[in-house]
Amino acid sequence: MQRFVNNPDLVVEDTVKGFVKAHSDIVRLAENPRVVVAKNAPVKGKVGIVTGGGSGHEPAFMSYTGKNMLDAVAVGELFSSPTAKSFSDAFREANGGAGVVCLYGNYAGDNMNVKMATKLATKEGIEVLTVVANDDVCSAPLSEREKRRGVAGEIFMWKIGSAKASQGGSLEEVRAVAQKAIDNCRSIGVGLGPCTLPAVGHPNFQIEPGTMEVGIGHHGEPGVRVEPLKKAEDVARDMVKIVLDDHDLPAGVEVAVLVSGLGATPLNELYILNDTIETEISARGLKVYKTFIGNYFTSLEMVGATLTVMALDDETKPLLDLETRCTMLL
Amino acid sequence: MQRFVNNPDLVVEDTVKGFVKAHSDIVRLAENPRVVVAKNAPVKGKVGIVTGGGSGHEPAFMSYTGKNMLDAVAVGELFSSPTAKSFSDAFREANGGAGVVCLYGNYAGDNMNVKMATKLATKEGIEVLTVVANDDVCSAPLSEREKRRGVAGEIFMWKIGSAKASQGGSLEEVRAVAQKAIDNCRSIGVGLGPCTLPAVGHPNFQIEPGTMEVGIGHHGEPGVRVEPLKKAEDVARDMVKIVLDDHDLPAGVEVAVLVSGLGATPLNELYILNDTIETEISARGLKVYKTFIGNYFTSLEMVGATLTVMALDDETKPLLDLETRCTMLL
Repeated sequence: MQRFVNNPDLVVEDTVKGFVKAHSDIVRLAENPRVVVAKNAPVKGKVGIVTGGGSGHEPAFMSYTGKNMLDAVAVGELFSSPTAKSFSDAFREANGGAGVVCLYGNYAGDNMNVKMATKLATKEGIEVLTVVANDDVCSAPLSEREKRRGVAGEIFMWKIGSAKASQGGSLEEVRAVAQKAIDNCRSIGVGLGPCTLPAVGHPNFQIEPGTMEVGIGHHGEPGVRVEPLKKAEDVARDMVKIVLDDHDLPAGVEVAVLVSGLGATPLNELYILNDTIETEISARGLKVYKTFIGNYFTSLEMVGATLTVMALDDETKPLLDLETRCTMLL
Repeated sequence: MQRFVNNPDLVVEDTVKGFVKAHSDIVRLAENPRVVVAKNAPVKGKVGIVTGGGSGHEPAFMSYTGKNMLDAVAVGELFSSPTAKSFSDAFREANGGAGVVCLYGNYAGDNMNVKMATKLATKEGIEVLTVVANDDVCSAPLSEREKRRGVAGEIFMWKIGSAKASQGGSLEEVRAVAQKAIDNCRSIGVGLGPCTLPAVGHPNFQIEPGTMEVGIGHHGEPGVRVEPLKKAEDVARDMVKIVLDDHDLPAGVEVAVLVSGLGATPLNELYILNDTIETEISARGLKVYKTFIGNYFTSLEMVGATLTVMALDDETKPLLDLETRCTMLL
């Protein structure tokens, strides 16, 4: 493994320490060293926004903590849910007296731990509402959307929900608009190479050279098909087709686009994908309002990319535009 | 090669197209399709800021175009200097009547082409001053600093020079403060894995698994030593020692720190490196004022990281803090 680690069992520990040192103007560590908190949180009277998830997806999740973004983030071990205690500690840190909305991804461990943490918080008098992201098109058919995984669409959900909270939205208003944001998101991942957990030392799945896995998940969950690696424009066309066939948006709708690398794919290749992505989206009569390109939601050093398309409306567009101050450009 | 490309000979073409489509609110393409221009450029009466360099280092160089940042960027082929014509077209696009400062890196091709472009511009009545970045500590001894390569320190030079220009600095004032910025920068790269030019199809240098190359350049230029891959904390300690032994700063000085991935190294490993980097810098009595971590200056899918330390003073600190609007967070 050609990588910068100390003790492979302490990767998360060291990652969080280095992150908080770098960005102490924006974040602080809670008493629980697995909870990162925005420096200005909790904001009195504001609905608190919390997320959490496994590590190894950096900058997701903790790097999105900050002003007009997430108030607190529960940090899990590599590719594992944070504990219920971490989630409930994050709720407490984020609560400014108006309750908390937890915006997280649809994975069994996260579902269980958020549920337990919500019960704990309720006992303490903190009201917690939740929205579960399920934007990964290939993880289940549309008729079973509740089974789909949450992926990079979570970033749009966080941004929209956090903006609403900053603008004084009530607990229910924040929940509702975050739910709308993720309902309007569709994502797909294409994998060209696997990743390795440092403590394991070898990839837990394989992608043969010369092939690609369409619909792959953020932990190597199998996609819908493995096929010979195609040209970027064919891959991009396929990604747009899968996402928009599922989305079924009327012409004229404005969309936000997020093209994220999975870790080891260079930025120039994401730009190359985007060249075709934007052409294809426009060809369907949709208008690309804003595009984000970079390593926004990764899986260690996995090779590949994800595409997320979010349909916008008059409510969500200005929320997407609200200026934030976290460690990522949004 | 597990990557997203179309025609390997048109990688730069497709990259620039996809970039400009994504960020048309911030940049535009000049008539010359190898020149990216800030949407608000040229600004009448403002000194124009130009850079340029080979492609494959994305987000360097073009992604730093924007308000309070670069006015125009000349784009070269992969790992090759832009042409003299592209540099001179960039000068013309950036010139708001107050002349242009070209802030670029010390490579033979760039030196030659910037020189020719400057002559062309002078004939057209555009005054051009230049600053040549040479922050890569391991590329030549301190006594021959003029031979050193320019690497990620260029980003600080661009930021400081661009901010001064936005604040109404004269041509000479902008040149002087950009020169000061790069004089106060030291960088080092550590490589763990090579990269491949798509049109070549195999790496043009090797890094054996289990080893690392200390002092490697952005195109695989040999470092000062190849040695067994060490723990992240030992690598980080070594990087800080090499950079600060060369820098020789008195205690109490404030510094800006940039930890950049080389392309395929995950963000969490950069955070891990930073944990030790900040400890080591502080141990020398220096104060870390601001830290930037991410893929700021890469080499395709090279595995590895660079460290840049810039000493700040009362003039450069507020310039570093000026808000920018480009596609990177600075």
